[in-house]
Amino acid sequence: MGTGSVVALSGGIGGVKLALGFQGICAPGALTVVVNTGDDFEHLGLAISPDVDTTLYTLAGLANPQLGWGRDGETWNFMAELERLGGESWFRLGDKDLAVHVERTRRLAKGEPLSEIIGDFARRLGLAARVLPMSNDPVRTIVETAAGTLSFQHYFVRERCEPAVATIRFEGAPDARATPAALQALERQDLAAIVICPSNPYLSVDPILAIPGWRSALQSSGAPVIAVSPLIGGEAVKGPTAKIMRELKLEVSPLTVARHYAGIIGGFVLDEADAALASRLDVPVHVAPTLMRTRADKERLAREVLDFASALHGRSIRPHGGSGRGES
Amino acid sequence: MGTGSVVALSGGIGGVKLALGFQGICAPGALTVVVNTGDDFEHLGLAISPDVDTTLYTLAGLANPQLGWGRDGETWNFMAELERLGGESWFRLGDKDLAVHVERTRRLAKGEPLSEIIGDFARRLGLAARVLPMSNDPVRTIVETAAGTLSFQHYFVRERCEPAVATIRFEGAPDARATPAALQALERQDLAAIVICPSNPYLSVDPILAIPGWRSALQSSGAPVIAVSPLIGGEAVKGPTAKIMRELKLEVSPLTVARHYAGIIGGFVLDEADAALASRLDVPVHVAPTLMRTRADKERLAREVLDFASALHGRSIRPHGGSGRGES
Repeated sequence: MGTGSVVALSGGIGGVKLALGFQGICAPGALTVVVNTGDDFEHLGLAISPDVDTTLYTLAGLANPQLGWGRDGETWNFMAELERLGGESWFRLGDKDLAVHVERTRRLAKGEPLSEIIGDFARRLGLAARVLPMSNDPVRTIVETAAGTLSFQHYFVRERCEPAVATIRFEGAPDARATPAALQALERQDLAAIVICPSNPYLSVDPILAIPGWRSALQSSGAPVIAVSPLIGGEAVKGPTAKIMRELKLEVSPLTVARHYAGIIGGFVLDEADAALASRLDVPVHVAPTLMRTRADKERLAREVLDFASALHGRSIRPHGGSGRGES
Repeated sequence: MGTGSVVALSGGIGGVKLALGFQGICAPGALTVVVNTGDDFEHLGLAISPDVDTTLYTLAGLANPQLGWGRDGETWNFMAELERLGGESWFRLGDKDLAVHVERTRRLAKGEPLSEIIGDFARRLGLAARVLPMSNDPVRTIVETAAGTLSFQHYFVRERCEPAVATIRFEGAPDARATPAALQALERQDLAAIVICPSNPYLSVDPILAIPGWRSALQSSGAPVIAVSPLIGGEAVKGPTAKIMRELKLEVSPLTVARHYAGIIGGFVLDEADAALASRLDVPVHVAPTLMRTRADKERLAREVLDFASALHGRSIRPHGGSGRGES
């Protein structure tokens, strides 16, 4: 297809939509999706990687279209029996979904790196894309809230994002190494773009950027780093991005997000609804419809991002170690 | 119901039928079922206790009537997905069944004794009986066969009992302690009988008897110890008992089983088909129909065992430390 290769950084459902678009337009093996694992946790003795699994299921065409997480045609017999036995039931694990958790836990316990396990799952599920966790080392997103310190899933699922967020931190990130196979994808000669998908910047992308190896690799890459706005007209399509920005006393605007990525991105994709803001960004901007409902929407946006990257690439390769600013 | 209390020693499906009969005729809390855990193993990172679970499911009315193991109305979505991911599939784990394995594994990892976990499961499943593992310490049944050394489930499930058995041993048994709560059931003033259910003597009952604390507790109990023959007319109702006896060069006869329990039992229940053997046993014998198809069959046999125990009890309480022989 001649698009070159793409590295997409993503969290869960929001970002994965664009990753699915890239999978649709990239040659097999040309797309590497690097997924947030700050949401990972151990639950019921099982190693759970929610964003990784949402990515695998979505790219394999196996995702639950109603829930935004978990498997299609899911059944819940395990959960019903677990409740009967007095087990914890606030985090729903479907019968099909359990297979990845049990098998991942078993293989991790044997000492296999998470990236090998996930890479193998991706192959077995027939994915054209490579899916890799941001790190094989544990990084845990911790949310300081009005209701106290909460681990990510307790905040996100059990408390339904209701407690006001004061600060967010990423335990383990300073010492975590970026996944070697993912860093290698950044070294490819045909690398056309590094894309920060429209995931929650504070909960889903920041865990990746909190890993020193990722931040420096993005800053030193020869390919354009492009972020796609997760906000449309001052609201997130899904999830608590806008709510968290208000709680963090941030202006709920794509401008805030673009500034958040300053020093890393070389281009920013704004939604049409926010076109008027374009002149206020200090990186090159592309305006596009960013709402992705259909598969065609996703692939069209992916193509626009690649065309934008190509234009930036032609215009000015960002120097190694450069700030990525001052190009607009 | 005035039957007094009963302690039943049992393996899986064969013995549990009689335990179900006892549960039907005993007052709530009067029946304690002590279950073989030599079959236990770790599989897919989960702690699996096949005989304990068969006991729980059967006594709760939740057992799969077709399979002889596992849950009623079971679904297999986990297993299908696990196979897709390349996981091991020779040991079938149903979606409902998984709940006990995941929750048991989680609680064991927290340091809870197996007996507390199983006792809690039994209460939550609404059982009138108490169900306890023979030990909280690991005991593992190992089968030396013509095809090499096999752990129990590899022999029983994966190899379908096909390799000829040379010897059977119980790793960990010499150092294992009998479950304290189960030993307490033997101390009850109203204890009417200790019953060795018609389970496989070599695979299901011997692991219990291989624990020094059980052997001595049975030998010193004031209540009659009665074994019910697992053989009818030279064949086992279900399972590999007769096959294993042939492979171990033993005569396939209830006489062999009764002799196997010598020093422990004070009475033996023979099937009607084997009534002619009664005079050749050197313990008191009761002849009864031992085939248990219906619930009524099970409760009738349970009543006959208790009546037999009562008669023995009235005739001669076995002295503490006595051999249990010489009473017929």
